[in-house]
Amino acid sequence: MIEIKTLIFPSLVTVLTLILYFVLTANVGRARFKYKVPVPQISGNPDFERVFRVQQNTLEQLILLLPSLWLFSLFVSPIWGTGIGLIWVIGRILYAWGYYQAAEKRALGFGINSLSILVLLLGAIVGVIRAYLTFI
Amino acid sequence: MIEIKTLIFPSLVTVLTLILYFVLTANVGRARFKYKVPVPQISGNPDFERVFRVQQNTLEQLILLLPSLWLFSLFVSPIWGTGIGLIWVIGRILYAWGYYQAAEKRALGFGINSLSILVLLLGAIVGVIRAYLTFI
Amino acid sequence: MIEIKTLIFPSLVTVLTLILYFVLTANVGRARFKYKVPVPQISGNPDFERVFRVQQNTLEQLILLLPSLWLFSLFVSPIWGTGIGLIWVIGRILYAWGYYQAAEKRALGFGINSLSILVLLLGAIVGVIRAYLTFI
Repeated sequence: MIEIKTLIFPSLVTVLTLILYFVLTANVGRARFKYKVPVPQISGNPDFERVFRVQQNTLEQLILLLPSLWLFSLFVSPIWGTGIGLIWVIGRILYAWGYYQAAEKRALGFGINSLSILVLLLGAIVGVIRAYLTFI
Repeated sequence: MIEIKTLIFPSLVTVLTLILYFVLTANVGRARFKYKVPVPQISGNPDFERVFRVQQNTLEQLILLLPSLWLFSLFVSPIWGTGIGLIWVIGRILYAWGYYQAAEKRALGFGINSLSILVLLLGAIVGVIRAYLTFI
Repeated sequence: MIEIKTLIFPSLVTVLTLILYFVLTANVGRARFKYKVPVPQISGNPDFERVFRVQQNTLEQLILLLPSLWLFSLFVSPIWGTGIGLIWVIGRILYAWGYYQAAEKRALGFGINSLSILVLLLGAIVGVIRAYLTFI
């Protein structure tokens, strides 16, 4: 039976990721203005394109991160899920402000992000299969 | 302890947002045909690009809206969460059919969307922190 | 009252979709290298563009599939939701490896995907409305 208490820790990480994504999305709007890239255009200026790709890549990762975080928290451990989720947030901050400067500077953050998602996803797989074998 | 009853209201808004997104996605397919933009191309014709950007921007917002809506509904109020979610749906309809006509006509809907997401997200942050301080 | 047992079946499909999406995303990185398309570029080479569109389209579908799958599983049937979700996974594999070869070869998988999402979404709508009429 799921209690609201179990959900507090993954919820804390979730709101952190959403705040970060909100900021990265607002940065795209400001970059459109700064580099004079009118909508609906999404290419043409490499400085704008980097800011845009940061937001797009974060969207591409969130659809993987959030379900993995929640399944890991429910089936393995909310505390560990939260810790690994926080590492993802730190990696994403490094990725974004690195990529804003130059494409090469995104590597460290991206590595941290990929690794933390992989751990959450593998943990979720193991946890769900274990729960399946226990309950059914 | 979470009961199915608590989930009904945010579920109603969620299916509404999904139906709207499904329609906006189908519109991209029709615009590909109408403006003769073959896959995998995503640019070249500004009329197509606007229809495509409506769907892409809705995707970019849904990853923010849906978790915020659910955390707000769980930790603050499902009724208020549902109301603000409905305002988002109305704003998105104004945004989409405005943007379909001209890029400038997306502003009102976009403002309503940004504001409703901001309220849900800020409410979720406050609600989760309050729950953390209460339970732990 | 929601028990962890009810969540096991949709969780199994969810991790399957996430593993598939993880593979399709890694394929984009490999295609960047193979076809020499440096970041932040996302167009220019049609072979790269097809690999990129497969991942993008999967992202566009996951935001629809995952909430539909979960609402269907909670309000209609977790077993049926899981079955239809598995059909989506098979369709997506056909879509991806078809599209990798040629744009025309994506049609069968895409049809299976659209149909399975439509069934889950319509089922979720009916299930949520029925729950609303029962409880309130």
